[in-house]
Amino acid sequence: METIDIRTTTREELIDITQLVRSTIRNAGVQSGLACIFAPHTTAALTLQENTDPNVKRDLLAHLRTLVPRDAGFDNDEENTDAHIKSTLVGATLTVLVEGGKPLLGHWQAVFFCEFDGPRQRKVHVRVLA
Amino acid sequence: METIDIRTTTREELIDITQLVRSTIRNAGVQSGLACIFAPHTTAALTLQENTDPNVKRDLLAHLRTLVPRDAGFDNDEENTDAHIKSTLVGATLTVLVEGGKPLLGHWQAVFFCEFDGPRQRKVHVRVLA
Amino acid sequence: METIDIRTTTREELIDITQLVRSTIRNAGVQSGLACIFAPHTTAALTLQENTDPNVKRDLLAHLRTLVPRDAGFDNDEENTDAHIKSTLVGATLTVLVEGGKPLLGHWQAVFFCEFDGPRQRKVHVRVLA
Repeated sequence: METIDIRTTTREELIDITQLVRSTIRNAGVQSGLACIFAPHTTAALTLQENTDPNVKRDLLAHLRTLVPRDAGFDNDEENTDAHIKSTLVGATLTVLVEGGKPLLGHWQAVFFCEFDGPRQRKVHVRVLA
Repeated sequence: METIDIRTTTREELIDITQLVRSTIRNAGVQSGLACIFAPHTTAALTLQENTDPNVKRDLLAHLRTLVPRDAGFDNDEENTDAHIKSTLVGATLTVLVEGGKPLLGHWQAVFFCEFDGPRQRKVHVRVLA
Repeated sequence: METIDIRTTTREELIDITQLVRSTIRNAGVQSGLACIFAPHTTAALTLQENTDPNVKRDLLAHLRTLVPRDAGFDNDEENTDAHIKSTLVGATLTVLVEGGKPLLGHWQAVFFCEFDGPRQRKVHVRVLA
C-alpha cells in the first residue's frame, strides 16, 4: 500500500491525481489486477472525470454548491455540513482495473481528489491487488 | 464471506456498522488486503461518514429528502421511488483497505448502513481479499 | 478481463447488463471472489437498481434531469455538462461479490449501464478476482 499526500489550497477544488496513481501502480509491480483508491476523509471524495476542459471541473463544483448550499440551515454548527453531504454523494472510494501495469482508464478519464472543506493536508491510500 | 443482519426501526436512518465490519475482517484473518462491503438492496445504501456529531447524520438524511422528495410525482406507485433514487446516488457498495487485520479508516470515518425505506430486515455482505 | 460492448440508442437510458456480467463471471471460472465492473466513460455510469418495475428506471432518469438540468447555465459549451455531473454522482465503477461462480446480487438488484449522453458506442470492463 502507498499513501499519496495532497495539500489543498482552497475550500473547494478538484485535483488531478492520475499521475500519482499511475506511479503507485507502477511501483506495486502488478501487471494485471485492480487498484483500490481510498480517501480517509469525510469532507472530501474521489471521482473519475474529464480533465481536458477546465470548465467541467468548475461546472461540477458550482453545481454541487447548488445541490448542497453551505447555508442550507443545517443543525451541525461546524459550517461544513455541505462538505460531508457532498462526500457521501460523490463517494470516498474508487476501484480501477490494472492492465499492463497501468490503470485502465478511458480516453477522457482522470482520477480527481475532490476537496470540499479545504484548505487542508489530505491523504489518499492506494492498494494494488493481483 | 460473512453476512451482517440489520434490523432497521424506522423509514430512514443511518446505522453505524463499523464494529460489525471490524469483527468480520478480524474473523477473516487477513492482515493486508481489502474488504468489499455490499448491500443487496435497492432502497438502501452504504456510506463512509462521520459519527461523532449526530447532527451530521440528521442533516444528511434531511438534505437527501430535500433533493429527492417522497412526493415528487413519480410514475412508480409503490411510494418508495425516492428510496430507489437515494440508493443509486449514495451507492450500495463500498471497498475499504485492510491493514494489520483492521479496516484502514480515517480518524472520523465510520461505515454506515443507510436505510431509506424501512423498517425492514436487511443484510450486508462482507468479503475480505488478501 | 472481459469487455462488454454496448450500443446505446438514445440520449439517456438505463440498460440492464446483468446477464452479460453473469456470463463474464462464469467465463472467468472463479467460484468465490469479487468482480470489479468499470465504465471507461465520463458521461455514463453504472448502478445497481430494480428492474421489475420499468417506472423505476424512468423515474430515476427523470429525477436526475431535475437535479441536473441540461440548460443550467454551465460554462462548458459542449452541452453535455449535465451528463458529466450525473456520471460523478452515480459513479462509473461497481464492485460485486462472486459466490458459486455467480454475482451475489439481492433479489431485486440488476446491474445497469447508465447512458447520459448517447446514443454512443460504449464499453464496460469486468475483472474477476479470486
